[in-house]
Amino acid sequence: MIKALAAKAANAKLEPFEYEAVIASADVLVTVECCGICHSDIHLTDGEWGNVYPLVPGHEIIGTVKEMGAAVTGLEVGQRVGIGWQCDSCGECEYCQAGNETFCKANQPTCMGHHGGFADEVVANHRFVIPVPKELASAAAAPLLCGGATVFTPIDQYVKAGDSVAVVGIGGLGHLAIQIAKAKGCVVTAISTSADKEAMAKEFGATEFLTEPRAASYDLIINTAHVSLPMDAYLPALKPNGTFVQVGVTAAPIVIENIEHLIDGNKKIAGSAIAHPGKIKELLQLAAEHNIAAKVQIMEMDEVNEALEITRQNQARFRVVVKN
Amino acid sequence: MIKALAAKAANAKLEPFEYEAVIASADVLVTVECCGICHSDIHLTDGEWGNVYPLVPGHEIIGTVKEMGAAVTGLEVGQRVGIGWQCDSCGECEYCQAGNETFCKANQPTCMGHHGGFADEVVANHRFVIPVPKELASAAAAPLLCGGATVFTPIDQYVKAGDSVAVVGIGGLGHLAIQIAKAKGCVVTAISTSADKEAMAKEFGATEFLTEPRAASYDLIINTAHVSLPMDAYLPALKPNGTFVQVGVTAAPIVIENIEHLIDGNKKIAGSAIAHPGKIKELLQLAAEHNIAAKVQIMEMDEVNEALEITRQNQARFRVVVKN
Repeated sequence: MIKALAAKAANAKLEPFEYEAVIASADVLVTVECCGICHSDIHLTDGEWGNVYPLVPGHEIIGTVKEMGAAVTGLEVGQRVGIGWQCDSCGECEYCQAGNETFCKANQPTCMGHHGGFADEVVANHRFVIPVPKELASAAAAPLLCGGATVFTPIDQYVKAGDSVAVVGIGGLGHLAIQIAKAKGCVVTAISTSADKEAMAKEFGATEFLTEPRAASYDLIINTAHVSLPMDAYLPALKPNGTFVQVGVTAAPIVIENIEHLIDGNKKIAGSAIAHPGKIKELLQLAAEHNIAAKVQIMEMDEVNEALEITRQNQARFRVVVKN
Repeated sequence: MIKALAAKAANAKLEPFEYEAVIASADVLVTVECCGICHSDIHLTDGEWGNVYPLVPGHEIIGTVKEMGAAVTGLEVGQRVGIGWQCDSCGECEYCQAGNETFCKANQPTCMGHHGGFADEVVANHRFVIPVPKELASAAAAPLLCGGATVFTPIDQYVKAGDSVAVVGIGGLGHLAIQIAKAKGCVVTAISTSADKEAMAKEFGATEFLTEPRAASYDLIINTAHVSLPMDAYLPALKPNGTFVQVGVTAAPIVIENIEHLIDGNKKIAGSAIAHPGKIKELLQLAAEHNIAAKVQIMEMDEVNEALEITRQNQARFRVVVKN
């Protein structure tokens, strides 16, 4: 039996919950060492995404392989691995075949319709179980599995070394985006209304800290804050061919009042969700080479309700990780 | 003296206007054979873009080289050439050096602060004077210089052979977008509320004609209509990684109500303005190889006021070209 912590209803506190592990031939049973807390876990426990209960959140998992199905290759028992937002897909559609598994129609989230990482063990398809390079400390690596990979994807897609990147919002995702863009050789500007984050932002690798973007200055602006930004202020802050990326779901609409702000200079507004497993792998390698590490506050697994509350209140500096 | 047709004030009819040609060492004097009429000419003559008068519109020019400044290379007198929206740039900034001349801060439009193609002759910097392949008929090629190049740029940037492209609006730009996407090997869907355009759209190369897009079906949707489309209907019509491109300036804002429509499937909304001269050159080559031709209604240069009115009323099928 897997010993987990589950919400039994929307807005309920997590409480002990046991379930039988079902390990299919392509699956891996992972002993959970630690698990980061992502804002998605709050949306889930607060019942905002129409989830089914009991719900075991947790999808920034680091652990070790305990048991493998007969068809699993490329992993070994005892190996340290990570699991992110997605834990399975069909493996056969055009998207899976092309390494774009997040687009698969059978995309299976780790903690929606499947029990997640706030537990002693968790099951995932082996294609979503990512080896963790030995250079990385487990707790500092856990948030790379979802939050880090979420910001890595658009940075990897839209900019190259030497480009200028603005990161809006210096929280769980933002502090990783700064480190990742810096590691990719970009010049990074941190943008936040919290002036007390300036020193930390610069420590993470930002060259400059601003409360508002400069005009015509960035090849990429990545909005990690949980708000919709005024596009008619942010699009003019892009250089020609520049991209504004929204990674978080916000309640308010995104509005472009003046269409010329989009057309002049061939600019674009892109959305980016979670990362394909190949991208998570690339990020962990980059992190090993450039000492990318989440700044984490470590708590015990049985303090998960307090840990969730810290994240819900935006008090995490910069990510809470619970450990067994 | 160049004999042109100019608006002397906003909303005024064009009337004869003469000016002295000034041919700098990098300039070319072109004898105008014909000139397409673009919706931008309407915006200009109607005073919507704060232009200075007298104003000689016309920026889809085909003609022959009459005279060249001392520093001009790569062209010869008598050669057939085209000129589009842009007629000069600094030539030295990072954008000019990279072949991205439309982004140059000294970007000089052909008919704003410079006299355009509704004339017997016109002057342009030689870097913006594009040789026209012998396979192309002048009148059918003229609209490629601005309208065609405007839609070619995002098609060239965002899709490859085999991809699925939806063209919204089957007018001056749309009928060229269908032909260009087809020539690039894409499967093209024409989307229009004018049911009478179905036969023509299929003749231009569309496989399907619809009044509304299908869900999850297109790698690229290009909006050539002069309206802002409902993003919460059009983003779900894109496949994962798909792009919605807005090429026309519209008065109404672009609004994404549900941010998940942008984030799920990593979609993007891009703007695209005019084309760099290198792209115009590529398009003319593609047109020569694939018989891309604007469907035009040819009128005399001295009928330009009637020709502008046809375009203003959206009555052109599909582009009006005036000739000397």
